[in-house]
Amino acid sequence: MPAAAEIRAAIHIAAIVCIFLAGTMLVPLAGSAVFGWAGEWPFFVSALTVGLSSTVVGFATRGPAPRFTARFGFIVVNLLWWVAGIVCAVPLMLGPAQLTLVDAFFEAVSGITTTGSTVMVMLDSTDPSILLWRSMTQWFGGLGILTLGMFLLPYLNVGGMQLFRVESSDRSEKPLPRFVDMSRWMLLVYLMISGACVVAFMGVGMTPFDAINHAMATVSTGGYSTHDASFGYFDDNATLWVGALFMTLGGLPFPLLIMLAQLRIRGQIDPQVYVFLGLIALTTLILMIGRPGVEANTFESFTKDLFNVVSVMTTTGFAADDYTKWGGLAVPLFFVITFFGGCAGSTAGGLKTYRLIVSFELLRASLKQLSHPHAIFIMRYGRHRVDPAIFRASMVMAVAFVGSMAALTVALGVCGLDFVTAISGSVTALANVGPGLGDTIGPAGNFSALPDAAKLILALGMILGRLEILSVLVLLSPALWRS
Amino acid sequence: MPAAAEIRAAIHIAAIVCIFLAGTMLVPLAGSAVFGWAGEWPFFVSALTVGLSSTVVGFATRGPAPRFTARFGFIVVNLLWWVAGIVCAVPLMLGPAQLTLVDAFFEAVSGITTTGSTVMVMLDSTDPSILLWRSMTQWFGGLGILTLGMFLLPYLNVGGMQLFRVESSDRSEKPLPRFVDMSRWMLLVYLMISGACVVAFMGVGMTPFDAINHAMATVSTGGYSTHDASFGYFDDNATLWVGALFMTLGGLPFPLLIMLAQLRIRGQIDPQVYVFLGLIALTTLILMIGRPGVEANTFESFTKDLFNVVSVMTTTGFAADDYTKWGGLAVPLFFVITFFGGCAGSTAGGLKTYRLIVSFELLRASLKQLSHPHAIFIMRYGRHRVDPAIFRASMVMAVAFVGSMAALTVALGVCGLDFVTAISGSVTALANVGPGLGDTIGPAGNFSALPDAAKLILALGMILGRLEILSVLVLLSPALWRS
Repeated sequence: MPAAAEIRAAIHIAAIVCIFLAGTMLVPLAGSAVFGWAGEWPFFVSALTVGLSSTVVGFATRGPAPRFTARFGFIVVNLLWWVAGIVCAVPLMLGPAQLTLVDAFFEAVSGITTTGSTVMVMLDSTDPSILLWRSMTQWFGGLGILTLGMFLLPYLNVGGMQLFRVESSDRSEKPLPRFVDMSRWMLLVYLMISGACVVAFMGVGMTPFDAINHAMATVSTGGYSTHDASFGYFDDNATLWVGALFMTLGGLPFPLLIMLAQLRIRGQIDPQVYVFLGLIALTTLILMIGRPGVEANTFESFTKDLFNVVSVMTTTGFAADDYTKWGGLAVPLFFVITFFGGCAGSTAGGLKTYRLIVSFELLRASLKQLSHPHAIFIMRYGRHRVDPAIFRASMVMAVAFVGSMAALTVALGVCGLDFVTAISGSVTALANVGPGLGDTIGPAGNFSALPDAAKLILALGMILGRLEILSVLVLLSPALWRS
Repeated sequence: MPAAAEIRAAIHIAAIVCIFLAGTMLVPLAGSAVFGWAGEWPFFVSALTVGLSSTVVGFATRGPAPRFTARFGFIVVNLLWWVAGIVCAVPLMLGPAQLTLVDAFFEAVSGITTTGSTVMVMLDSTDPSILLWRSMTQWFGGLGILTLGMFLLPYLNVGGMQLFRVESSDRSEKPLPRFVDMSRWMLLVYLMISGACVVAFMGVGMTPFDAINHAMATVSTGGYSTHDASFGYFDDNATLWVGALFMTLGGLPFPLLIMLAQLRIRGQIDPQVYVFLGLIALTTLILMIGRPGVEANTFESFTKDLFNVVSVMTTTGFAADDYTKWGGLAVPLFFVITFFGGCAGSTAGGLKTYRLIVSFELLRASLKQLSHPHAIFIMRYGRHRVDPAIFRASMVMAVAFVGSMAALTVALGVCGLDFVTAISGSVTALANVGPGLGDTIGPAGNFSALPDAAKLILALGMILGRLEILSVLVLLSPALWRS
C-alpha cells in the first residue's frame, strides 16, 4: 500500500482517538456542573470543537483498512502522540488556567507521555476541573504506553522490545484472539489497580478528589499532583507508603500483573522484576548509608528516601521532599537513576530495566571474550537464549538515548539554560520522569520560567523518550518511505 | 603458562620500564646542575631510589619470557600504568614542589595518562625542574598510549580496536618485522613532530624552556602548562594557531602520520580523519553562531573558539580562555565534546572518533532494519566490510564508558563534590581531557581543593579511560584467571 493511503488511514485512527478524548472532556464538564467548578463552558467548547473537527476529519479519511505494515505502525504511533498532545492542550488554553499555546502544549504532552513536568504554579488554587483533566491525560497516557509496549513495539522490533512478544511463550495460540484477550485483561487490571489506589489513598486520609487525581497520576507513573508541594503536602508516612506501593506496581511489567490477576503464574518470572526491585532497594540503601551524617536515619527519613527513589526509578516524579537539598551523593545518585526507568511493558519510561540487564550481560560476555577470543558465547535473557541481534538493538537504543541527551542538552544551552538545568532537563524529558535538578526545574521548582523554545524542545524530548526514540527517528530514514 | 609466571614476567617488564624512567630523571637533574634549578638533590635521590629498587626487582623476577597471551597482555598494561604513576610521583614528593603522597600520585597519573588535570597552583613560580618533569611524564605517556593503541589493544581485541591491526591491509608481510619497523617509525615521527613543535613555539616567541615543555604536552595531547593561565598567558593568536595545529596532529591516527612521513599514501585514508576534522570544524562553527551576541566574531574570538575546541576534542586540555564564562551553549557543548576524543591510534583519549562512526552506522542500520526486518545489512567501516561482532565490541566500550561515568559521579558525590564538579570531573578523567566544569575544576581552576578520596577516584578514572576501560575490568573476570 502506498504511503499516502497509510497516512490517510493513520489520520483516521487518530481522529477516532480524538473523538474519544473529546468524550472524556465531558467528565470535568460534569464535575463542574455538579460541584460548581469553573470548567463548564471551556470544557463544553473544547469537547464540541475537538469532537466536531475530529468527526469531520474522520469522515474525510474513511477508506479500506490498510494491511498492518511496520511503516503504518510507525506513522500511527508518531501521529497519535503529537495529535493527542494538541487535543489535550485545548481545555488548558480555554479553561480557567488560561495557559498560553506553548505552555498548554507542554503541559498536555507532559501529561500524555506520563512525564509530569509542569509549567503550572499555584496548583492548590487552580480550578479542580483543570487539575482533573491533567490527571486524566496521564491516566490515558499510561494506557497508551501499555498498549504500545505490549502490542506494538515488540512487533515493530523497536530497541530489542521483541523480547517481550506476548505470544512467544505459547506458540499454539493464535495471536489475534490472544491480543484481544490480553488487551481486555490489560484494561481490567489497569482499572482494578487504579480503583485500589483511590481506595488506599482515601484510607490514609486523602480527600476523594485528591485520591482520584493522585491515583491516576500514580498508576500511570505520571506524577502530576494537585498541590505545589506534591506529596510533601501530605507530610504523612502512610500516604508515602501507599504512593510508593502503587508507583512500584506501575513500574512492573503488566503481563506479570495480569498473570497475578488471573491467579496463575506460568513460566519464568521476567528477570526485570528482580533487578528492578533490587535496584530500588540498593539505591535506597546507598542513600541511607551515604546521607551526610548530620541527622540519623529514622523511619521517617527511610520512608522519604524510599518514596523519592521509587518516584524517580518508576519515572513518576512525585516529590516528598527537595532531595537536591540533601547534599552529598543525593544529586548525582538521583541523576543516575533518572536514566534507569522501570520495566519494559509497564507505564514507566527511561532506559528500562531489561536494557540494563542486557548491557550487563553484553559487558560480561565481552570481558569473557577478551580472555577467550575464539569462544562462542550464548546470550541469555533469564533462561531464554536470545539472538545477539536483539541484544544489539537494545544497545543501539541506549546509545541513541545518550546521543539524544547530548543533542537536547546543547539545544537547551542555545536557549540560554544553565548547564545543570539543560542536562537534567533533557534527561528527565527523555526518561519521562518529571523533575530535573537545580533551582529552576528541580523537585521544588517547575518549568514555567523556561523560554518557549526550551519548552518545545523538552516536549519533543518527552515524545522521543516515550516512543523509544528509534520509532521517531525511523521517520527520517529514506528506507521507510521506499515502496 | 600459569598466572603466577605471567605476573612474574610482567613485574620484570615493569621493572625495566622503571629503570628507564629512573634514567630520564637525570634530565631535570642535569638541568638543575646547569641552570641552577632546585632539583639537583631530589632528582638524584629519586633516580637512585627508583633505579636501585627497580634493578633489584628486575633481577629477582628474571626468568623465561612467557608466550604472549591475552592475559599476559592485560596484566602488563595494567601494571605498567599503575607502577609508572607511582614512580613518576617520587620526584614530585621529594622535589621542591613537596606534594603530598596523594597529590603527587594524582599529578603523576594525570601526566602519564596525558590527562593534564593538575593539583599544583602557582606554576609560574614553581621550580623549573618540576615543571620539566611534569611535561616529560606526559611525553612518555603519549608514547605509551601510541604503543598501546597501535600494537597491543588491536591484538587484544579491546573495544573494537581490532579494526586497526596494522598488518591487516597487507597480509603478505610477517607481523613481527613489520612491528619492529612500525615502532621505529612511530618513535621517529613522534620525535620529529615534537621537534617541529618546539621550533614552531619558539618561532612565535616562546622561551626555549616554555617551548620544550609545551611541545611535550601538546604532541602527547597532555595539557600540562608552565603557567597557571595555560595558553591564556601568551595572549597571542600565532601561539594559539601553532598549538591548535600540533594538538590536531596529536589527535590524528599515527599510522597515517607515519605514512605521510614515509612520503607514501597507500590504500584508503582512515575515515576517522575526515570525521574528526569535520567535528572540530562543525563545533567551532556552532560556537561562533551560538555565541551570545554581545560581541561580534573577530579573528581573535575565532582563534580562541578553534583553539579551545581542538584542545578539548583532542583531549589535551590547554585553555586559552575560561570558556565556561562564555555562557549560552558553550558549557553544554564543551561537555558533550569532552566525550568525543580523538582518533584511535593517536595520543588522544575519549570515546574515539571511530566509535562515533560505528555508533552512527549501527543506528542507521537499525533504522533500516525497522523498515525491512528481514533484510540483512552489511556493516562497513570506510570501504571495508566489518564483522558485526567488532561493531558490538565498540558499542560495549561506549556503554562501559557511560556506566563508569555514572559510577564515578556517584562516588565523587559521596566525597562531597557538587553535581557539576562530580559529573564533569568523572568525564574529564575518563576521557583524559584535563579541565572539568564549574568554579573548582573548570578551565580557570584546578584540582587542588578536592578531598584526597576524590583525587584517588579521579586517578582511577584516568587509568580506566586510558586503558579503554575493558582492559581494566577484564582483570575482574574469572574467565581470565582460569587456565
